[in-house]
Amino acid sequence: MINEKMYGLGDEPSAIRELFAYGMARKAEIGAENVFDFSIGNPSVPAPELVRETMLELLDMDPVALHAYSPAAGLPEVKEAIAAYLSERYDTTATSGHLYLTAGAAAALASSVAAVTHPGDEVVVVSPYFPEYRTWIEAAGCTIVEVPAAVPSFQPGIEALRAAIGPKTSAVIINTPNNPVGAVYTRESLEALAAMLREREEALGRPLYLISDEPYREITYGIEVPWVPSIYARTIVCYSYSKALSLPGERIGWVYVSDAADDGDAVAVAVAGAGRALGYVCAPVLLQRVAARCVGEPSDVAAYAENRRLLTEGLSALGYEYVEPDGAFYLWVRALEEDAQAFSDRAKEYELLIVPSDSFGVGGWVRLSYCIARDTIERSMPAFKALKESYEAKLSS
Amino acid sequence: MINEKMYGLGDEPSAIRELFAYGMARKAEIGAENVFDFSIGNPSVPAPELVRETMLELLDMDPVALHAYSPAAGLPEVKEAIAAYLSERYDTTATSGHLYLTAGAAAALASSVAAVTHPGDEVVVVSPYFPEYRTWIEAAGCTIVEVPAAVPSFQPGIEALRAAIGPKTSAVIINTPNNPVGAVYTRESLEALAAMLREREEALGRPLYLISDEPYREITYGIEVPWVPSIYARTIVCYSYSKALSLPGERIGWVYVSDAADDGDAVAVAVAGAGRALGYVCAPVLLQRVAARCVGEPSDVAAYAENRRLLTEGLSALGYEYVEPDGAFYLWVRALEEDAQAFSDRAKEYELLIVPSDSFGVGGWVRLSYCIARDTIERSMPAFKALKESYEAKLSS
Repeated sequence: MINEKMYGLGDEPSAIRELFAYGMARKAEIGAENVFDFSIGNPSVPAPELVRETMLELLDMDPVALHAYSPAAGLPEVKEAIAAYLSERYDTTATSGHLYLTAGAAAALASSVAAVTHPGDEVVVVSPYFPEYRTWIEAAGCTIVEVPAAVPSFQPGIEALRAAIGPKTSAVIINTPNNPVGAVYTRESLEALAAMLREREEALGRPLYLISDEPYREITYGIEVPWVPSIYARTIVCYSYSKALSLPGERIGWVYVSDAADDGDAVAVAVAGAGRALGYVCAPVLLQRVAARCVGEPSDVAAYAENRRLLTEGLSALGYEYVEPDGAFYLWVRALEEDAQAFSDRAKEYELLIVPSDSFGVGGWVRLSYCIARDTIERSMPAFKALKESYEAKLSS
Repeated sequence: MINEKMYGLGDEPSAIRELFAYGMARKAEIGAENVFDFSIGNPSVPAPELVRETMLELLDMDPVALHAYSPAAGLPEVKEAIAAYLSERYDTTATSGHLYLTAGAAAALASSVAAVTHPGDEVVVVSPYFPEYRTWIEAAGCTIVEVPAAVPSFQPGIEALRAAIGPKTSAVIINTPNNPVGAVYTRESLEALAAMLREREEALGRPLYLISDEPYREITYGIEVPWVPSIYARTIVCYSYSKALSLPGERIGWVYVSDAADDGDAVAVAVAGAGRALGYVCAPVLLQRVAARCVGEPSDVAAYAENRRLLTEGLSALGYEYVEPDGAFYLWVRALEEDAQAFSDRAKEYELLIVPSDSFGVGGWVRLSYCIARDTIERSMPAFKALKESYEAKLSS
């Protein structure tokens, strides 16, 4: 018999993907220039030229060697290059044996959660949160425990997290820079989080893993993104080149298990074992080599910064309320009615595609991806104005 | 706490990978030309030139469009191209909605098993079998049930399979052309298997899925590889371009759920849902486009055929017993003592790296991969001779 949970996951695509698909159809219907699609986090700046140059060079290699299987954790020279980069950049010791190259951050997270949990455990997330966390936590047989972020900073709420961590808790997932709100967790927040986790570890007599999901690490607007393993030893960093190198469809990223953790060697082994169980043989090998060559290659953050300025200034002038983003390329905007889905639906009437907050675990907000053409943001302002006025007309009628 | 199952999977690499790693070290020590490495199924013929040409052309595309996320099941135009190819080649109706592009056959199998089973179910395999079947079956919470192939044909043993299929059985996995024995399942075998499965379905009152793992479909020596969905409706084909296009490290393949199955639409949805749960976002998108362009591009089977001739003639002259392979690039050779591991260990003394049969679920045999340089096969013969003589010396002493 078909597995009904898997059927459910296949049958109900995420709200983001659903809106994205609607947008594709709508653009075909009325012209792409008439749809203001803020739905998906597909980088709008091209991959750095070095990516293309590297691929062209690689295609001159012997194809048998180029396309061969790599070891399960990745090509040794690729892991060495990434470990050396991390060590230097974060003034730390990151060894290649603690790296496991993956098919993107999704594979990294699914493998990490499966590595440090048992069925029946609880995994704590900070809401609003990336919706697929629920999928991967439940796939590991665990229960997701949602703890609201502190408002209005959207930093992790330390006391609320402390209260949520109990004898079944195995891990806490954080996401910084954050999707969907754009917050970057400060050093102060992370130090308070680490101190609380160490206290809870001692009180509960069991290890607590901090899984730090960081695909937006390079997309920030002049703010520090602290290196979490240097703050909390039992950290597992999940990274992807999807956003930093604008390669989302290519699926390349890694898990790094902190060298500072007393059980780090064993966790790294378990992550690789979990990847094996999930059907991963090795990360796409051409892209492994690209990652090694392009590690540290800057993304065109200036384009996102300009989009961020245009969007926040425009919405501000129209009287919308939002969270000032320090990183990533999302704007978290207060819906103009309590029902975020209804607000998103009404926005569609103005050809505005914005993701309701419900699937991020909270009500009353929407997420706008601004990794889109600058021109789309500029031309969308009359639609945002009309959307707002439609609510004011309702109120005054 | 670390998940001990995942730790175990990470800590105990497969016998194949272990031997491969030993070979890498040994080659560094005594020179690659002095090690006769028959351990791993890494294609030795280069990818067709069209793969490189296609990649070069694709790199002229707008990088934002080229590297963007695809829908979870794959780019529509890629799925259309593959569905059209399958429909024409196998004189059938394969629709693109029943295709789910994957990161290789491993992802295809892990997703398919999770889609049509529930924890506690049984999945039947024909031994000897590809060792990772056990990993993916157990990862889905199911029990593997091993049924020996018919000897000496190594076709599926219909009566033994019938006896093994009970009220907990959800699926049967077959692998044709077969790794490790090289057998290609005949139309007659598959028709008998299908008839038996239909009988058992009726008797048990539950669907039985036939998962046909076919990465070696294009690697055959003049024998038909029947299209299984045309023989048994509830078939799920798992395919990979790893061997056909010599791209094993790039991770590109697909699941095709038969259009003839009454529940095929739902199974296709469940496969996609399972892929989502396992952390797959989309198959590597550059490779998706390569697959569409190179679908049906012939592999250089002639090179493997020549290797097969050299190896079988050479071993035959030395008095080794083996199964005549009709497909894939493996030779299944009778070990010269009952303990296959001991035989493999002794072979190492002659710098021969051959995989003991134990991890394929049976004792007393070894697997030789002949997707290697022709020259290695030629030069290995004195070592095989000496290995054999070492046993004869033992007997006569």
